[in-house]
Amino acid sequence: MATFKVDVDNDILQCLFFWAGIVLLKTIFMSLLTSINRISKQVFTTPEDYAMVGKDVSVATDPYIERIRSCHRNDLENVIPFILIGVLYMLVVPKAQWACTYFRVFGISRLIHTVVYLMKVPQPARALSFAVGLTVNFMMVVSVLRSVAW
Amino acid sequence: MATFKVDVDNDILQCLFFWAGIVLLKTIFMSLLTSINRISKQVFTTPEDYAMVGKDVSVATDPYIERIRSCHRNDLENVIPFILIGVLYMLVVPKAQWACTYFRVFGISRLIHTVVYLMKVPQPARALSFAVGLTVNFMMVVSVLRSVAW
Amino acid sequence: MATFKVDVDNDILQCLFFWAGIVLLKTIFMSLLTSINRISKQVFTTPEDYAMVGKDVSVATDPYIERIRSCHRNDLENVIPFILIGVLYMLVVPKAQWACTYFRVFGISRLIHTVVYLMKVPQPARALSFAVGLTVNFMMVVSVLRSVAW
Repeated sequence: MATFKVDVDNDILQCLFFWAGIVLLKTIFMSLLTSINRISKQVFTTPEDYAMVGKDVSVATDPYIERIRSCHRNDLENVIPFILIGVLYMLVVPKAQWACTYFRVFGISRLIHTVVYLMKVPQPARALSFAVGLTVNFMMVVSVLRSVAW
Repeated sequence: MATFKVDVDNDILQCLFFWAGIVLLKTIFMSLLTSINRISKQVFTTPEDYAMVGKDVSVATDPYIERIRSCHRNDLENVIPFILIGVLYMLVVPKAQWACTYFRVFGISRLIHTVVYLMKVPQPARALSFAVGLTVNFMMVVSVLRSVAW
Repeated sequence: MATFKVDVDNDILQCLFFWAGIVLLKTIFMSLLTSINRISKQVFTTPEDYAMVGKDVSVATDPYIERIRSCHRNDLENVIPFILIGVLYMLVVPKAQWACTYFRVFGISRLIHTVVYLMKVPQPARALSFAVGLTVNFMMVVSVLRSVAW
């Protein structure tokens, strides 16, 4: 059995962990934002939620809360794969001089995506910020596959 | 290039892996619970599912199955970030004497959250168990950002 | 404080990273497929999307786009836990001679699951491919818990 030695540039590690922390903090913030809006608008998901505020409703929806939830789901679809792909990329791609640029571009694109989504900025602002993040993930995962498969 | 050396207290590692395993097992259990309920209630998501049981329905919903799916989505929004944040926290925060307490509190809060959600325990039981887990994630991710950014 | 030494067979590492890359690439592909279908069918999620194409609609759904999104959500529920569980498994289970078989079976089962879901192959094709992946995750997470808890 060979010994696997983690040999990573400390700057790349720090850069990944910084941007992973930022986008995870932003994702957690979506949970909080949903809760705050549900309470202020009294729009909940279960009968027991309505029972607490003395109402007899089974479930209801609100367009802006659904917008927050769509943004949150989009984070799950992009932020979580980014962190997993980022770790694989950092560990297996030799001379990852692009690494920190990728992490930074992804992180900034996701912050812009959230602002654009929640502020209802006209398209194609959201499509472009989404496409940038997706492209970074795609470039990195292809690099990982090239490194371990060939 | 500096060599990154993983230097983690074995107790913290074991504690994280134990709780990560528990909450992931619980999350997998939600998939199984959804499947069991779909089959026993004959409420499916696609026409080919209904075709197998000899029915001609396109798609239908059931309040309790939607409850399980909401609980499952809540797991994805909280359990997955917890594990990613937990690993970052374990690796970069020096003197992580709070680590195992954080992991344990998060794990127990999520087990309570699931029981409360599925048993329809009156609020604010679910809100509190959810808030505890979210707070742990928030505290850890802020510690990570402080460690790598300053 | 003890030093945690990552001591992993390079073949297992390479096998995990290869299949993690494949299933993550497949998951990213779902985002792209949703976007392509939304644009070609002109079915969007927000009023600003419709404004760009000169329509005044708030939100609409399409059965096939919802099918892609269900498949995507199923990936989030299974692929992300697989990678996290796979890393834990690789790190803590001694003599992981089953590791690469698990990773390969999971990866192939998810590729089949996606093809079956999107091509509307009659059941129980989708149920079986889903069950195989879920079983692999279950077996691995139980092994992890046995390794760190006893």
